[in-house]
Amino acid sequence: MLTDMDISSRASLKNITELGADLGLLPEEMMLFGHTKAKVELSVLQRLAGQRKGKLIIVTAVTPTPHGEGKTVTSIGLTQSLNAIGQKACACIRQPSMGPVFGVKGGAAGGGYAQVVPMQEMNLHLTGDIHAVSSAHNLGAAAIAARLFHEARLGKTEFEAQSGQAFLDIAPNEIRWHRVVDHNDRCLRQIHVGLGDNNGPEYGSSFDITAASELMAILALSHDLADMRARIGRLVLALNTQGQVITAEDLGVAGAMTAIMADAIKPTLMQTLNGSPCLIHSGPFANIAHGNSSIIADDIALRLADFVVTEGGFGSDMGFEKFCNIKVRQSGQAPAAAVLVTTLKALKANSGLATEVDSNAPNIHVPNINAPDQARLEAGFANLNWHINNVARYGIPVVVGINRFATDSDAELQWLMEAVNASAAFGCEISDAFSQGEAGAIALARTVVRAAETESQFKLLYPDEASLEAKLSTLAEVGYGASGVSLSIEAKQQAQQLTALGYGHLPLCMAKTPLSISHDPSLKGVPKDFVVPVRELVLHAGAGFITALVGNVMTMPGLGLKPGYLKIDIDAKGEIVGLG
Amino acid sequence: MLTDMDISSRASLKNITELGADLGLLPEEMMLFGHTKAKVELSVLQRLAGQRKGKLIIVTAVTPTPHGEGKTVTSIGLTQSLNAIGQKACACIRQPSMGPVFGVKGGAAGGGYAQVVPMQEMNLHLTGDIHAVSSAHNLGAAAIAARLFHEARLGKTEFEAQSGQAFLDIAPNEIRWHRVVDHNDRCLRQIHVGLGDNNGPEYGSSFDITAASELMAILALSHDLADMRARIGRLVLALNTQGQVITAEDLGVAGAMTAIMADAIKPTLMQTLNGSPCLIHSGPFANIAHGNSSIIADDIALRLADFVVTEGGFGSDMGFEKFCNIKVRQSGQAPAAAVLVTTLKALKANSGLATEVDSNAPNIHVPNINAPDQARLEAGFANLNWHINNVARYGIPVVVGINRFATDSDAELQWLMEAVNASAAFGCEISDAFSQGEAGAIALARTVVRAAETESQFKLLYPDEASLEAKLSTLAEVGYGASGVSLSIEAKQQAQQLTALGYGHLPLCMAKTPLSISHDPSLKGVPKDFVVPVRELVLHAGAGFITALVGNVMTMPGLGLKPGYLKIDIDAKGEIVGLG
Repeated sequence: MLTDMDISSRASLKNITELGADLGLLPEEMMLFGHTKAKVELSVLQRLAGQRKGKLIIVTAVTPTPHGEGKTVTSIGLTQSLNAIGQKACACIRQPSMGPVFGVKGGAAGGGYAQVVPMQEMNLHLTGDIHAVSSAHNLGAAAIAARLFHEARLGKTEFEAQSGQAFLDIAPNEIRWHRVVDHNDRCLRQIHVGLGDNNGPEYGSSFDITAASELMAILALSHDLADMRARIGRLVLALNTQGQVITAEDLGVAGAMTAIMADAIKPTLMQTLNGSPCLIHSGPFANIAHGNSSIIADDIALRLADFVVTEGGFGSDMGFEKFCNIKVRQSGQAPAAAVLVTTLKALKANSGLATEVDSNAPNIHVPNINAPDQARLEAGFANLNWHINNVARYGIPVVVGINRFATDSDAELQWLMEAVNASAAFGCEISDAFSQGEAGAIALARTVVRAAETESQFKLLYPDEASLEAKLSTLAEVGYGASGVSLSIEAKQQAQQLTALGYGHLPLCMAKTPLSISHDPSLKGVPKDFVVPVRELVLHAGAGFITALVGNVMTMPGLGLKPGYLKIDIDAKGEIVGLG
Repeated sequence: MLTDMDISSRASLKNITELGADLGLLPEEMMLFGHTKAKVELSVLQRLAGQRKGKLIIVTAVTPTPHGEGKTVTSIGLTQSLNAIGQKACACIRQPSMGPVFGVKGGAAGGGYAQVVPMQEMNLHLTGDIHAVSSAHNLGAAAIAARLFHEARLGKTEFEAQSGQAFLDIAPNEIRWHRVVDHNDRCLRQIHVGLGDNNGPEYGSSFDITAASELMAILALSHDLADMRARIGRLVLALNTQGQVITAEDLGVAGAMTAIMADAIKPTLMQTLNGSPCLIHSGPFANIAHGNSSIIADDIALRLADFVVTEGGFGSDMGFEKFCNIKVRQSGQAPAAAVLVTTLKALKANSGLATEVDSNAPNIHVPNINAPDQARLEAGFANLNWHINNVARYGIPVVVGINRFATDSDAELQWLMEAVNASAAFGCEISDAFSQGEAGAIALARTVVRAAETESQFKLLYPDEASLEAKLSTLAEVGYGASGVSLSIEAKQQAQQLTALGYGHLPLCMAKTPLSISHDPSLKGVPKDFVVPVRELVLHAGAGFITALVGNVMTMPGLGLKPGYLKIDIDAKGEIVGLG
């Protein structure tokens, strides 16, 4: 069997200039990066300002398992098949982080015959956007640390006299902007910086993976460069000793941070294996951030294509919920339909009838998972059905896409199709996009087209004007089926404080485990009778949301015992091998 | 007066594809990055393997001062003027680090009418090579830390059983590979990592600026991708508890690090203001590393052009010495001539007759430095004359280029020309490249052509087979005019140890202050009667040199009171402003 990399290497690619022209881009709207990638200039948005927009399709999934549900495979496959049936379709997906590429799985460009190619270019630097986010973020961190150093060294009078800048009176224990790197580096989760002579003051700091940077969320949510500049200006980098916020604007570093990201705001055009266009842009985490690709990429694609396929991270309780309540709220661009991806394996692993336990992925290991097992399948269907209803709640039709594995039982697939057809879903199709490429998701594509033609009325889960506590209750009770929410004393105070400061209208970004619909990763299927504990609320004034920390959320992964990098190398011809 | 950025913005540029074709590149040998930059594929080296090579010109300078001598201005200006007089010339220079761009000066693309354009692209991400070096470096750091974590957590038996890899027995206090970031971030000079539960073991670590990474030196010294892969495999990341080295190959991370740098090995083609070609590649520091652009870029350019102009960092005691004894030793490509850049101001500041003192730049502040001052000029000439003789020592003709400032006195210039003409220099010309572009360095170009036509016999300062201590003595006594060298007890042991391990044949990279010919930045002019104290020897097995630490050498700069980023922003048209 060919690896993803083999398939990618053997693909014959369209020249990206032709591909862009076919999509409707002018030559001057493409900044080429070799023959396989081009950044799209934002001037296209002015040129097509009056253009009728296509339909946006959001791809989501059941509760994720270590088996991989194939959400990106389905997004790419659906895009390929939409083009195959004569629709003009474009995919919009996130840029993979190098952390997981070298840490775990070796790639996030789809797989099999539903890939973005060349996959090694997508999985490594692409056109440098993640590097730009890291660099802009770390310039902000260096700036706040240097200001602290000089202010501490000189005192107010001397600092102001020598520097010509206002004394900010930064509180060393209230630095809110730390550092990022695009790798899985566990030992940077908690560090002390400023040790040694003349490097201080010493303070506790940390590194997150770049996907967790607020700048990454800003990149995904900005409408244009001026909007990005304004958002970066609002970033809170520290508090002063009086507890007042110090922003990137106050520090005079917002312009330089924006300059570093001035090219990153342009989405990157690539292609899938059948030559369908794909815009790759931004890569925010789906736990600590909102986990969706950019508003700008969607906006460009919707003016050029009939169908734009995008995806939200993790299950529908996570990336899809945030797609609706954060991204659509900011973009105003409602989806016409949703695709909900599942697999037989995912249902069995989500059945709550697992027999093994692993502390990192509790209660989802099923022995002989490929063998027919009606009890687990039926129990797991409850999870799928919950996600169907969860998506339908937002007022849009939902099509279930079953991502078929070679080992799947036909009888089980048949049972599942019937069960879904009896549910609130608009329809259900099997996808063979992985093994068959564009031919494998034709039925899915046709059903999605029909779904998108229905009258639908997208609705948000909660209005801007609801209080922060009311939003949390709604998310817990309606969003997850919890019996309620409990805020820590700190979170209650923060809710009051943020409301008093005028941030009460912002949407919430729930930072919870993706491994359960609830906050507790050990609760599988459709958890009931749980109360969601909110530990802390964190303002992201630039991104425009408030993150609610529920349990421990990892913002810096670690490398495992058999990291992905062990297989990666260059071969005798100088080609990269071992990715994916 | 127009700023560098104004001049750059108003320039009318050739399409880079045409520029590359004029230079002799085939279309398939250029990987475009927009219309202004292209990476050059290394396949050109095979195609032109039998090609007669052009002449290499190395540009160096007197002892640097804060006034700026204009070495890059002269390199670019000379290239422009060589093309103007009908020679086919190409410049090869280093990529600027973003640390100084945002920290101090706002750019390193030359200046005035002798610039590489667009200067903001050169000064920010270029084609991502520095980001690639940072990323590859930090993957190595994450890998060693993760291995330490898992080995400590599991012990030998369990680690080997569960991971299928050999137990490396890493000594936590002997980790030799830390982290890098391409910013000036003082508080990262000394840090503790691995704090908190389950993130450890805790160990002392640090960040260098990326220019100080051994990977940057490797990028500059590699002959091809296979050579780079082999060098990365040899990197020493840690010692085990028995004191034996653990390499990137031992850790299984060398292939992945190389994969991250697989595109970085391709030099980037840009253009100067008059449309002369310029290859930009790598950016090693000139103190802790060897401070010259890449062997690969020179090699490509020499097969395509009659004259290739490159430069070494700092004065001739630093970048030029390392150009000869490290880069030429590894490349086998001797220069045909050298250009030694000076200014009137630099001579006065190097006179030893300064009246003010600043601890960061001691004994070089001269009041009314633009006013005629024959005493200081004559005293400062001694410094220039030392550098002339230092370059001539390597057996090549040296042309002095006086970089003229608008405020310079004609009489002083005249005196200086005569003084140089009475020296060992081949010739002396005034350069107005900054203010006049290609017309400003015609005389310099003609003299350089004549110099390069002379018979010359390049010679290294010391042979491979000299002992490490003998090499240090030669560098100190012949290279700097010291009365001798003194090794610390540690350095002596290291010299013995490195020799025993088979590294005694490697050249030395002297990590000393650039602000004096000696090791002491307060000693100006031509220091005498000093002994060079060598504190420590550090093996760089991948780069292929041993760094000798002489005094304190900064590998992570800090941001000053008025950092360059304060002026940098985007304007209403979305253009970057405030660089340079």
